[in-house]
Amino acid sequence: MATLYLIEQNTILRKSGDRLLLCRKPPVNRYSPGVRQDDILVEWPCSDIDHVMVFGNVQITTQTLHQLLEKGIETALFTLHGELLGQVTPPMGKNIFLRIRQFEKYQDNRFRIDFAQKLVYAKICNALHMLRAHAKNNPQILEERELTDLPAALEKINECRDPESLVGLEGSTAATYFKILSKLLPPVWQFAGRSKRPPKDPANAVLSFGYTLAASELASLLDGAGFDPCLGYFHEPDYGRPSLALDLMEPFRHPLVDRLMLTLFNLKILDQTDFTALPRGGTYLSESGKRKFIEHYEKMLGPYQDDLPQENDQPKYRAAFQQQVAHMAKCIKDEVSFAPFRLDEKKINKS
Amino acid sequence: MATLYLIEQNTILRKSGDRLLLCRKPPVNRYSPGVRQDDILVEWPCSDIDHVMVFGNVQITTQTLHQLLEKGIETALFTLHGELLGQVTPPMGKNIFLRIRQFEKYQDNRFRIDFAQKLVYAKICNALHMLRAHAKNNPQILEERELTDLPAALEKINECRDPESLVGLEGSTAATYFKILSKLLPPVWQFAGRSKRPPKDPANAVLSFGYTLAASELASLLDGAGFDPCLGYFHEPDYGRPSLALDLMEPFRHPLVDRLMLTLFNLKILDQTDFTALPRGGTYLSESGKRKFIEHYEKMLGPYQDDLPQENDQPKYRAAFQQQVAHMAKCIKDEVSFAPFRLDEKKINKS
Repeated sequence: MATLYLIEQNTILRKSGDRLLLCRKPPVNRYSPGVRQDDILVEWPCSDIDHVMVFGNVQITTQTLHQLLEKGIETALFTLHGELLGQVTPPMGKNIFLRIRQFEKYQDNRFRIDFAQKLVYAKICNALHMLRAHAKNNPQILEERELTDLPAALEKINECRDPESLVGLEGSTAATYFKILSKLLPPVWQFAGRSKRPPKDPANAVLSFGYTLAASELASLLDGAGFDPCLGYFHEPDYGRPSLALDLMEPFRHPLVDRLMLTLFNLKILDQTDFTALPRGGTYLSESGKRKFIEHYEKMLGPYQDDLPQENDQPKYRAAFQQQVAHMAKCIKDEVSFAPFRLDEKKINKS
Repeated sequence: MATLYLIEQNTILRKSGDRLLLCRKPPVNRYSPGVRQDDILVEWPCSDIDHVMVFGNVQITTQTLHQLLEKGIETALFTLHGELLGQVTPPMGKNIFLRIRQFEKYQDNRFRIDFAQKLVYAKICNALHMLRAHAKNNPQILEERELTDLPAALEKINECRDPESLVGLEGSTAATYFKILSKLLPPVWQFAGRSKRPPKDPANAVLSFGYTLAASELASLLDGAGFDPCLGYFHEPDYGRPSLALDLMEPFRHPLVDRLMLTLFNLKILDQTDFTALPRGGTYLSESGKRKFIEHYEKMLGPYQDDLPQENDQPKYRAAFQQQVAHMAKCIKDEVSFAPFRLDEKKINKS
């Protein structure tokens, strides 16, 4: 199963039987109706696809939308710059019983504080492991002793007995973390910490784009499993915020998106031509930049899979997304206690 | 504010600035790109539209989908025969606080039984008023004394202290009601009671189509207000069932859809050419039939409006939909007690 990212502008997604065809828009002066073989850029069997992400001006025929809906394929519509605008969703293909349980657990303060503590702990652990791996490989740039604030934060988590103090601890630790992260990037990129809405520089453009893709995929998976993506246990409910998707994303942010960002800049895969600065402010990935990002992001995510052993050195993030969503369904039914995504320290040190 | 029903096949919905244009699909041998004035069939300012319902093979450009999402216009996709396939929805533009309250009230058995009793009462009252009006105007077809089962059912409602017995009472009363309704239709249409999935005859095709439109509009309104349309208080939760939309629709079914069906057949507005029988079973409205149905349905619905007095003889159903959804939001916050939609008896007798 795979995700289609449609980023090539002025193309059109059509269907033919059980296949999806990405086509050049035919010239308006052509006589023959229908799809000509040499207009087809790529094609896929529907059965290989489970998500379609559409960026900017890529058309989809209504027959194709019907097919996607019938096959249960999730479709998300983004602006050219990667802002999520909306989804095409089946009317109510949702498991209401799971949502009833999800809302019940929201009333359970003990469940919520336990969830939040474990989540913040996993997030900081994953940050620490990632930075330690870098320090080990690049001791001239980063030394282990510069990381001491992170283990110190881990020790404070159990003292946080209410959500507000956990949010505070998480925020101050993230500020420390991004300060350290900025040292790991070539200085030419002038990354001075996280900025968003709009991202101010190329590194932030990459982080924003990556977080949006990951949150959108987690929200789709949650939605598909029957959850209300807006009711989380760490992120407070707020108008228009996919709190549960943001909750589950926390432990993935640093090792998945931030690490990919470092790789893309340090290996000089991304260069200045891969970014666009808009006159009204904000820096975004250009079409070439999105193409490069998605290529490497997809490699990190790996495929969806039915069984979830992680036999290789690389964690399989997409399988881990799936696993976390399935795990959440068991948690809210009290079948297991919450275990957020954790990097395997030995594996990250090898990679 | 209005609902666009796009039923003309081989057309395309485009945008131009703040306007929506329904266009003929331009012939493929035309040289000029863009929209030609003589391809535009109809156009509307976006600000006049709040729902778009798309039947079968009508294309929408991706730019138009973006515009609809940005303007908060609900878009629903139907098969040619009127089966709801899916919606295009903004990511999470939803009021999670309302849903938290909605799920809390689901745990409140006293609230649910009160809600269900009032709902079934209103539904039977509305059926009774509608049939009485017919009996008064057509005493040769229906006599008042044939209706006695309905007031008898009303008297039994308060004895039903649990949901199951209310569902039983509602079901047996509906069977009685449809038996009476069948007398009011010209015998040529051979309506012998309700059949669905698929509808077996033209009268059932009209009922199914009307109920689908009304439920889809109520579900959209509920969704837009922040409700989970799947969690109702009378209809039990079930996989894929929009229970709250179905709850609120109950009192509207007979006076809105059934009455319209009688009018369309009795005034010979619909004829045999307005229906299609599919080889695999089921009878559906044809394009001409849908066009006629929607024209009269829209007249009955009337416009959305900000204030909701019902000054004319005709109830304004669309305003009543809105009012019911707003009313539900107050009910679950315990600001008011539930008052389902009720026909005004004096008005129905005049009409």
